[in-house]
Amino acid sequence: MFSVTVRDHMMIAHSLSGEVFGPAQRLHGATYVVDASFRRETLDADGIVVDIGRAAEALRAVVGEFGYRNLDDEPDLAGVNTTTEALAKIVADRLADRMGDTGLDGITVTLRESHVAWASYERPL
Amino acid sequence: MFSVTVRDHMMIAHSLSGEVFGPAQRLHGATYVVDASFRRETLDADGIVVDIGRAAEALRAVVGEFGYRNLDDEPDLAGVNTTTEALAKIVADRLADRMGDTGLDGITVTLRESHVAWASYERPL
Amino acid sequence: MFSVTVRDHMMIAHSLSGEVFGPAQRLHGATYVVDASFRRETLDADGIVVDIGRAAEALRAVVGEFGYRNLDDEPDLAGVNTTTEALAKIVADRLADRMGDTGLDGITVTLRESHVAWASYERPL
Amino acid sequence: MFSVTVRDHMMIAHSLSGEVFGPAQRLHGATYVVDASFRRETLDADGIVVDIGRAAEALRAVVGEFGYRNLDDEPDLAGVNTTTEALAKIVADRLADRMGDTGLDGITVTLRESHVAWASYERPL
Amino acid sequence: MFSVTVRDHMMIAHSLSGEVFGPAQRLHGATYVVDASFRRETLDADGIVVDIGRAAEALRAVVGEFGYRNLDDEPDLAGVNTTTEALAKIVADRLADRMGDTGLDGITVTLRESHVAWASYERPL
Amino acid sequence: MFSVTVRDHMMIAHSLSGEVFGPAQRLHGATYVVDASFRRETLDADGIVVDIGRAAEALRAVVGEFGYRNLDDEPDLAGVNTTTEALAKIVADRLADRMGDTGLDGITVTLRESHVAWASYERPL
Repeated sequence: MFSVTVRDHMMIAHSLSGEVFGPAQRLHGATYVVDASFRRETLDADGIVVDIGRAAEALRAVVGEFGYRNLDDEPDLAGVNTTTEALAKIVADRLADRMGDTGLDGITVTLRESHVAWASYERPL
Repeated sequence: MFSVTVRDHMMIAHSLSGEVFGPAQRLHGATYVVDASFRRETLDADGIVVDIGRAAEALRAVVGEFGYRNLDDEPDLAGVNTTTEALAKIVADRLADRMGDTGLDGITVTLRESHVAWASYERPL
Repeated sequence: MFSVTVRDHMMIAHSLSGEVFGPAQRLHGATYVVDASFRRETLDADGIVVDIGRAAEALRAVVGEFGYRNLDDEPDLAGVNTTTEALAKIVADRLADRMGDTGLDGITVTLRESHVAWASYERPL
Repeated sequence: MFSVTVRDHMMIAHSLSGEVFGPAQRLHGATYVVDASFRRETLDADGIVVDIGRAAEALRAVVGEFGYRNLDDEPDLAGVNTTTEALAKIVADRLADRMGDTGLDGITVTLRESHVAWASYERPL
Repeated sequence: MFSVTVRDHMMIAHSLSGEVFGPAQRLHGATYVVDASFRRETLDADGIVVDIGRAAEALRAVVGEFGYRNLDDEPDLAGVNTTTEALAKIVADRLADRMGDTGLDGITVTLRESHVAWASYERPL
Repeated sequence: MFSVTVRDHMMIAHSLSGEVFGPAQRLHGATYVVDASFRRETLDADGIVVDIGRAAEALRAVVGEFGYRNLDDEPDLAGVNTTTEALAKIVADRLADRMGDTGLDGITVTLRESHVAWASYERPL
């Protein structure tokens, strides 16, 4: 199995609902350094999983939909508890939509919220 | 599949038994930067795999059992060749015990012994 | 010259005032990974610049004053444009107050806002 | 499952064939930071997946076959589009040959071409 | 003293002249991860050293002049031994020209050629 | 001012004397990832501060004197409290001796003991 990963980031404000989150129930924020991995069983005719430039553009477009925003106010995210895990899935699903029918077998998205904590979501395509 | 990872570290002395280890048969030491990943197929009602704060506390408790110790003198580790791989399993097993019945599907523990070498152990729950 | 550095982090929301900031004028957020360096010309009687544990506690206390907060609402920061550079100075000054009369010659604080941007403030003591 | 990973690097020149590569069709170069992971279901009698020193030597030997070379001129690579993905497979296959019959279950090789892009190839043994 | 740093990268081919370089006398290549730091004694009216977006664009423009090229064929670099140190100075000087009269006190540029080696050049403005 | 930095590591056991060290008074250990920076005002005739290969060999030799040892038993270190700061100075001084008369202006050595703590020593030559 082959994979290609590209990295970008987004800086957002949000709050989390639920006692388990303690002080993170308050409005605060995060920089998410986002790694998007694309998997393919075999390489295409150019010898690649996906063009790194094209992958980077797709990721840039997806993180651009969140960046410099308060996620509590985003209509698309109404009712979503925007935990790091949940956001990883949303980024992965949006990337999957954006990449379209490209022969990819799967996508994994990792959101690093600090030097000591991160979350991932992995899905087939 | 979702995962959440938290990072901590421990600083230990030990020696390794076996000719394959060359100079590492002598008493020496290591800082292990420890990454503990928790996996779940679906998110819980709070939208998380496990609370990052709770995961970090569990990891801190486990690495605290080793930190600032000579592993050669630990009764719990008597007869164990405390290689990086073997320690990764011990940390993972202790974390599994400590997390209890939380709906998690698996744990992976990675011990980074330097900027150029690390080892992991992955297990279901 | 000797130095000792410890790392912690804080997750905050804020907005920035000024056209130069473009989309960062909106309410958004950041994880700041904070490195605090303490400098001393010579080591003390214990052979240290400052105890790493004590330095880590001081930094934890200072970043705890900001963490999980919306800086736009903090009375202490009223009228301050909380840019990465400005926050680096505030963290450094609060650390200096907290460390007290310890024979240190200077402090440098670096706030990393992403994998591609960071800011520092350096001051004597 | 256990794994052990070692890191090395190689600095090469090459060009890529295919319009998808845009400016990377020109002769340019890369530093590949190479992570080689070795997997084993159970540890051997010494308590290891593979000796880290031996793994590092094998990786050093393999990257030494590429280092400080123009891959466009390497007879072994004639007709190969030396993308990051394709090189990851070549490194993994050469490592597999070099490790021989060691009870390993698999190898994964990751080539990091920058702080924002990398590729991997994973194979059984 | 304040500083702001931004990171980008460039992937180039080149060869080095001089016996000291051993195998690096052959045509090979490198990814340089480039950190550009801008220094100012005091912050400007917006509370910044330099806008991070503007600094990133300037750095992108400068590394774009080198990226995906064989430096041995660049007329601008004729007669220059393009060592990591020498390139750090060229990048710093071009950045200084591009930033113009901005009240900055100095620039430092670091080129990371691998996970184990890097070079810097520091100059006043 | 130019600088070149190379990275290596050493894995040691030791204990620290003094109540300030708390649990680190017990025999424990550390991996020190060691960065050695060499400074020069101007480049030499080859366009370098120091050959990266030569610098790496010198650093490897110095860290090899400590690696896989219990520093409490080293005659050369008798009576030394081997804190991270103190070791940074010893490594820097040994590197200075080893480099000899090379036109260098200074050396800085940083020992990273974990992902959250490190110490440096800077000296002229």
